[in-house]
Amino acid sequence: MEATKTKAYGASRSLINSFNMVSRMNIEREKPKADEVEIDILYCGVCHSDLHQIKNDWGNTLYPCVPGHEIVGKVSAVGLGVTKYNVGDTVGVGCMIDSCGKCASCQEGVEQYCEGPSSFLATYNGYQHPNPLEFNKKNTFGGFSTSIVVKESFVLRIPDKLDIKAAAPILCAGVTTYSPMKHWGVKAGDKVGVVGLGGLGHMAVQLAKAMGAEVTVITSTEAKTGAAEALGAHQVILSSDIKAMNAAELSLDFILSTIPDPYDINEYIKLLKRDGSLVVVGVLAPFSKATNNMEVALHRRSVAGSLIGSIQETQEVLDFCAEHNLAPEIELIPIQAVNQAFERMEKEDVRFRFVIDMQTLKSEA
Amino acid sequence: MEATKTKAYGASRSLINSFNMVSRMNIEREKPKADEVEIDILYCGVCHSDLHQIKNDWGNTLYPCVPGHEIVGKVSAVGLGVTKYNVGDTVGVGCMIDSCGKCASCQEGVEQYCEGPSSFLATYNGYQHPNPLEFNKKNTFGGFSTSIVVKESFVLRIPDKLDIKAAAPILCAGVTTYSPMKHWGVKAGDKVGVVGLGGLGHMAVQLAKAMGAEVTVITSTEAKTGAAEALGAHQVILSSDIKAMNAAELSLDFILSTIPDPYDINEYIKLLKRDGSLVVVGVLAPFSKATNNMEVALHRRSVAGSLIGSIQETQEVLDFCAEHNLAPEIELIPIQAVNQAFERMEKEDVRFRFVIDMQTLKSEA
Repeated sequence: MEATKTKAYGASRSLINSFNMVSRMNIEREKPKADEVEIDILYCGVCHSDLHQIKNDWGNTLYPCVPGHEIVGKVSAVGLGVTKYNVGDTVGVGCMIDSCGKCASCQEGVEQYCEGPSSFLATYNGYQHPNPLEFNKKNTFGGFSTSIVVKESFVLRIPDKLDIKAAAPILCAGVTTYSPMKHWGVKAGDKVGVVGLGGLGHMAVQLAKAMGAEVTVITSTEAKTGAAEALGAHQVILSSDIKAMNAAELSLDFILSTIPDPYDINEYIKLLKRDGSLVVVGVLAPFSKATNNMEVALHRRSVAGSLIGSIQETQEVLDFCAEHNLAPEIELIPIQAVNQAFERMEKEDVRFRFVIDMQTLKSEA
Repeated sequence: MEATKTKAYGASRSLINSFNMVSRMNIEREKPKADEVEIDILYCGVCHSDLHQIKNDWGNTLYPCVPGHEIVGKVSAVGLGVTKYNVGDTVGVGCMIDSCGKCASCQEGVEQYCEGPSSFLATYNGYQHPNPLEFNKKNTFGGFSTSIVVKESFVLRIPDKLDIKAAAPILCAGVTTYSPMKHWGVKAGDKVGVVGLGGLGHMAVQLAKAMGAEVTVITSTEAKTGAAEALGAHQVILSSDIKAMNAAELSLDFILSTIPDPYDINEYIKLLKRDGSLVVVGVLAPFSKATNNMEVALHRRSVAGSLIGSIQETQEVLDFCAEHNLAPEIELIPIQAVNQAFERMEKEDVRFRFVIDMQTLKSEA
């Protein structure tokens, strides 16, 4: 198989716990097969899950690990059978680059819940198809690199109206918050809570508001209250303000909780109205305290979880953002600053998403 | 206010932790007001929550406490304005005897979620209306007594086709399992799990089966597997059988969990299909372990709670049982044996509901 040496930043096993979480490495990208497109990467967002993955917080990291699943670029080559894209098109790649295509979830167009033997193929930290069982299996590598090759059916079209730098985070932060709001039927007039105002939360506020909801942000960070209002929140509650939290009991139809690390979910369940749903994205681990079913049952509440979004929903949220003039708020960084960016993310010092300018990698020696 | 001295069995504060949990006492019942009926109690079921309440497991018990909210009897007197019932009618009383009538939940006919200042008025362990704020407030007293006076709108009609002894547990165990199955839309062909095979669970199996579902019972008690099959279960899984539990992952559309004491909910979440809901009744406390959102989010599952059922649903489930020839399996006991019955319930030694023959109280000295 012909391969192209490609510049990247990634974590090798030996670098865990060292100061530099990711460092310069070379990876190989195969040439596009008949149904694949090759993308010259222009920008890549930095997601909190990149940090979880390189630190092996979920115990499943494949090293070397090149993170990045908020990828925007230009098509630089297409396979012979590609019909949807042409060289030069502005495209995106999100969290998935393939799935089994045969299970009920794939057939119903919710590939993120693929029930095939290896679930969906993650943009990075997955095993490359077509033969996941082969002895010498290869990692997939993400967008902290100069190019990527992806099956056209997993490639998104970036609408012309979107600023391509700011479009990158829509591919994960955007769809991860859009998908549950669509699935649970958030609509005009609903009272929607958004817990946590980071990369996901700040997209959730804008999307819910554009859907016509009245948005309440619940944050632990007093310094973010102004930003929450600027993003369109109708009300901001500091989670440490017990009086305000008590006053908000039974007030929300739907809550999306985006806190990335384990916490006590009970504090937020109380804010739901009867028959309301609290949907948890962001944390893929046990909460810090057991759920009290008294609070859940007394008002027939539901606590659910949701995982990213489908390819169709990813295209929908890109188009929705273009139509409603929404965009992630980003801080553009050179790739050489990505380790400092990770450190700042751990301190919640980001408003609201870092995006890497990949030109800075291309021009590295 | 004219009152009638009435025989009862109840717990006084001084008796907690003693061998006899409830003992003989006299209570006063007021004469029926214009909209109330007086009921001569014939039978009363013994619910696991009676045990929780007399032991003050929820920290809210009002002593003296006369339990019992699965009441069947004959109308013995009616207020001047009563139109629905006549003396001699066979009627029932469940978990509620009043609610605010004004909040959204009451207006929508789900009084069990009443959002009035004191929620719904519980058949026992509530404060008597009409003035919940008065200094000298009185407890409500339940069905472990020879008579009760209840507003006609909270009284149920027992269908002629039902055996009145066996009808009693439908008023709590029946509606508590019927209500969530109706609300979450259980339908023919669904794969429904019932966790725990006690008073609630054994009703859930029969109701789900009558709705056309394929029922899987998950129990910790090997001795109950035969009974589960006899009740109509398609499959029985011992929760300690890890191989069988693993094999059942992703197999159920809906699970109703009826275990009455704190447990690890994660074991059962895994059994849900994508988009499935696990609804918890029975335990009004924190689970024994924190929920792992990885399991919830990976398949967009929901974990919800539900509280008893509405008056309308209680009438529905009585009529549904009559129509489908369903009934609780009961063990009829004299009231003098109720403390032994509580002890046997704690050891799960009941198939499946104790019902007290109230004639044994009437004939006591």
